[in-house]
Amino acid sequence: MPTYRLDLAYDGGSFHGYGIQKDQRTVQGELERALRPHTAGATTQVAGRTDRGVHATSQVVSFTSRALDIDYVRHSLNSQLGPEIAVRSLVEADDDFHARFSATGRAYRYRVLNEQVHDPLRAATTWHVREPLDIDAMNEAVGHLVGEHDFAAFCRRYRDRSTVRRIEWARWHRDTDELHLSIGATAFCHQLVRSIVALTVDVGRQIVEVADVPRILEGRDREIARGVAPPHGLTLVAVSYGEEELPRPAWVEPNHA
Amino acid sequence: MPTYRLDLAYDGGSFHGYGIQKDQRTVQGELERALRPHTAGATTQVAGRTDRGVHATSQVVSFTSRALDIDYVRHSLNSQLGPEIAVRSLVEADDDFHARFSATGRAYRYRVLNEQVHDPLRAATTWHVREPLDIDAMNEAVGHLVGEHDFAAFCRRYRDRSTVRRIEWARWHRDTDELHLSIGATAFCHQLVRSIVALTVDVGRQIVEVADVPRILEGRDREIARGVAPPHGLTLVAVSYGEEELPRPAWVEPNHA
Repeated sequence: MPTYRLDLAYDGGSFHGYGIQKDQRTVQGELERALRPHTAGATTQVAGRTDRGVHATSQVVSFTSRALDIDYVRHSLNSQLGPEIAVRSLVEADDDFHARFSATGRAYRYRVLNEQVHDPLRAATTWHVREPLDIDAMNEAVGHLVGEHDFAAFCRRYRDRSTVRRIEWARWHRDTDELHLSIGATAFCHQLVRSIVALTVDVGRQIVEVADVPRILEGRDREIARGVAPPHGLTLVAVSYGEEELPRPAWVEPNHA
Repeated sequence: MPTYRLDLAYDGGSFHGYGIQKDQRTVQGELERALRPHTAGATTQVAGRTDRGVHATSQVVSFTSRALDIDYVRHSLNSQLGPEIAVRSLVEADDDFHARFSATGRAYRYRVLNEQVHDPLRAATTWHVREPLDIDAMNEAVGHLVGEHDFAAFCRRYRDRSTVRRIEWARWHRDTDELHLSIGATAFCHQLVRSIVALTVDVGRQIVEVADVPRILEGRDREIARGVAPPHGLTLVAVSYGEEELPRPAWVEPNHA
């Protein structure tokens, strides 16, 4: 049976996370329900199982199924799943393509609205932080986390699974009244991006000192760095496969790689 | 009693329009309820009574009240009204300031997402139009509407109230995968902007010819031009007072004034 690759965008605020859960509206649940009449019940794999509230502009899903009329199915999925979910593309993939295991990189963006007053039209996609933020200190902090480390201090622990990851690049950038963190890695452990956001924002508002960041990292103690930034500021923006380079914003210079 | 000016932003999707209505959640209703303990029941005037679903980044409201501790009241309003409404500023105004009658200009922006596939993260703020749009034709169409005209064909009629208005400037602009209409006037009659959007988008997708636009305008017949674009693409972006110039995007050249 052929294997298909499906590229998705969704508004995380409308779902109890990506992964299927009984009696909850989830992205995977809605997607598999919409696929059912076409595929006779395919189960799907996903590149990044996003938490409740986290958005995606470029999530990747794979499944095997009897041969599909691709244009027809994509159209059917979009009419069933809109406006909260969009199928951006549906293509036949190599037989051994697996959205999760074939992925070689994931990139996220986190948006902070750094203004005195909140903004109703960005309430669903930004974390509102009132205090002035020192972006240079935030980038110094984030610099300590780039590279391969045991991120036990920043990840929710699952039994004895490794929390060693390699962050390829990470950088805060000011865009008028917003600060954006762009971050890329082969893979992230659970809550890693939001924990990094929480810690570096605390550095930015001078609650934590830059010098404490390597100590927190090396301590590998989840109890110390347990702050997690709210999910609705976070978006999965890219997944790469094979030799493909993860798209990196222009303002992330190579020396942060 | 002093007069106050209050600048508001809101997410129109959360309300049944601006103006107070019995048993409905409206912006004015929420605002006056939040003001009540401070002002002992002030009633408010507003620059532009937006329809259900229409957003605002810069709505202006006025009211008279006993003297207020401005910082304290602004803070109280924001904690009561967030995240759907934001009070961007609260200042004492001249005694004769009236948010509606003193206003000398209003500017709106309408956002069209012009892509094959809808976008979940912009579903609440853009009208999704799939067909390719000819922006030059749309600007030609809109050019016929700039200036002083009787917009009876484009406005919901209220008894014998005049539908003569003067549109100062109006122009469509492409911003990557979106088309934006920016439009400024002293005042708009009800549904005018959304009717202009509907008609010019129909020109853009070649359902209506540019040459028909002046005929529709001169016909002054609401039955012919009755299409109205959906409200959630529309945002009130500025109100001007006195000699103040309405802020105009850089790409609206003076010759469209």
